[in-house]
Amino acid sequence: MKKVKQIQNSARTSVDAMLAGYYFQNSKRISYDPTHKLIYRPSTSNVALISGGGSGHEPADFGYVGSNLLTASVNGDFFSPPKPGAIIEAIKKTDNGKGVLLIVKNFPSDMESFTKAKFIAEKAGHKIEIVCVSDDHSVENSSTYSKRHRGVAGTVLIHKILGALAEKGMSLSDLKKAGEQLNANLFTLGVALEGAVLPETQRPMFELDHDEVYFGVGIHGEDGYRKVPYHSSEQLAIELFNKMKHLTDWNSTETYAVLVNGLGSTTLMEQYIFTHDLSRLFKIENVNAAFVKVGSYLTSYNMHGISLTLLRLPDPSWLKALEEETDASHW
Amino acid sequence: MKKVKQIQNSARTSVDAMLAGYYFQNSKRISYDPTHKLIYRPSTSNVALISGGGSGHEPADFGYVGSNLLTASVNGDFFSPPKPGAIIEAIKKTDNGKGVLLIVKNFPSDMESFTKAKFIAEKAGHKIEIVCVSDDHSVENSSTYSKRHRGVAGTVLIHKILGALAEKGMSLSDLKKAGEQLNANLFTLGVALEGAVLPETQRPMFELDHDEVYFGVGIHGEDGYRKVPYHSSEQLAIELFNKMKHLTDWNSTETYAVLVNGLGSTTLMEQYIFTHDLSRLFKIENVNAAFVKVGSYLTSYNMHGISLTLLRLPDPSWLKALEEETDASHW
Repeated sequence: MKKVKQIQNSARTSVDAMLAGYYFQNSKRISYDPTHKLIYRPSTSNVALISGGGSGHEPADFGYVGSNLLTASVNGDFFSPPKPGAIIEAIKKTDNGKGVLLIVKNFPSDMESFTKAKFIAEKAGHKIEIVCVSDDHSVENSSTYSKRHRGVAGTVLIHKILGALAEKGMSLSDLKKAGEQLNANLFTLGVALEGAVLPETQRPMFELDHDEVYFGVGIHGEDGYRKVPYHSSEQLAIELFNKMKHLTDWNSTETYAVLVNGLGSTTLMEQYIFTHDLSRLFKIENVNAAFVKVGSYLTSYNMHGISLTLLRLPDPSWLKALEEETDASHW
Repeated sequence: MKKVKQIQNSARTSVDAMLAGYYFQNSKRISYDPTHKLIYRPSTSNVALISGGGSGHEPADFGYVGSNLLTASVNGDFFSPPKPGAIIEAIKKTDNGKGVLLIVKNFPSDMESFTKAKFIAEKAGHKIEIVCVSDDHSVENSSTYSKRHRGVAGTVLIHKILGALAEKGMSLSDLKKAGEQLNANLFTLGVALEGAVLPETQRPMFELDHDEVYFGVGIHGEDGYRKVPYHSSEQLAIELFNKMKHLTDWNSTETYAVLVNGLGSTTLMEQYIFTHDLSRLFKIENVNAAFVKVGSYLTSYNMHGISLTLLRLPDPSWLKALEEETDASHW
């Protein structure tokens, strides 16, 4: 395998250098704690929303720190969750007495870090709740991950809705409830054309044949549910749409938010071609897409691939929350 | 050479499908003319700003149609300028009597199309001016392109400043003057780590050795000024910064807008690491970066590479114009 070039100095310093570069761009608007790898808003008056996880998923999550969105992001090393100490520091820096909601993508090591931090911070007097996002439905019937729904791109929609609700003054317990309702209505499926090439190894995490795609892969190179010969964008849209139809059991009285997410090196042209194929299927099946977002919002570093997220919108305040303005850099 | 997969149905339909997908996402905000491949704002009250060029540079230019930005984008086929007829149609659809400013990237075929359209539209009674953007200074001393400054990523900054000035009611002739002043203060240099892989051929436009980078390449795979062995992000930052220093002949009393632009498949982590290296050089040399933007704003499809744009800001209204809010999807 050919080594792939990366714009970096050493893999060891990449996350710190990236956050310092982000802070150079955004220093008028946000604060940065390099010791704990935190990007945060210094003073807010409502429940604080903290999200985080391993780095390598940019712009998640630091790109979502801003008005009507997150209060802080805790950035771990490459594909590794942040340490409890860093999460506790983020809690200390953002809790103004109204409590803190931790938004965590459902991976065992992430949940472990955030749960530990919650336990310790509660002892110190903070009110903390966790919303665990598990929108990836691609591993539904796999033997390895039969009960595991990973947290992937749909997390970004949860950030936005809970962020806007918090800014309207919603209480911690109500935000926790809303988060759980959101997660129950959130469905994501992805497909890879090529595996991510990590900065450390400079080699692909997995390799596919020149005409092969892999449905259902995770955002850290985890196994998917099926490899098939690749023909066209339409083929990918039909596969993801049909599986989604089965999962959500939708009917034409419902409205949906749609996120088409590039997983890293996927061009915008590819993303919009896929979106067009999807829009035709929506029309045939009478799916009411009240909110549509297209872009690379939660990536698997430079993986070539795309994911489709559907969020059912039974509560009109969710759509309103998605549409609220924000000063976050990457919404 | 291995064929590279692309999310598409056929290369022939890619641009139309992309624009239809974009319109599906943005139909509440903008209009779409599929016959002429136009994305436009249906009614504005000031001088209309039209930009355009070949497709394959997404989100340029359709992503910049919005308030305080462009009135319309005219989208050509892949790496081919739009036909004069399409440009004339865009003029007809957006001229409200205050005239139209065409923003054109300096490539001979683009200039030919837009100049023809200007000539014909003027005969039909429209007031038209052209601003030709030629920010690429990488080919300064090459024998082939000795007098050719191509229009590249800096164009995006010109869109924003002229867009905001037009929205404040600036006249066509003053916008033309401002555009020329902006262009005289605008400098871009790029570097490629890998060539773009086009949807039509599914093969790289040029190939580099596994340890090689290419300074000064254009956004359509045009020749650069030097191939060198690649070491680090810092090496790239130093090369581009030093050449920029020579070009702009800056002093510490000046302020600058900075655009770090991913050229396609470059990850945000790579872009921010490079930005961090750059920020350290700025500090050493006392460069006052009053406005910093980082992201993939004008791409060479999926090329792996990065460009640096500096815009000198002698006029305080330019910085204000950059900071104005917009509802465009990709600013």
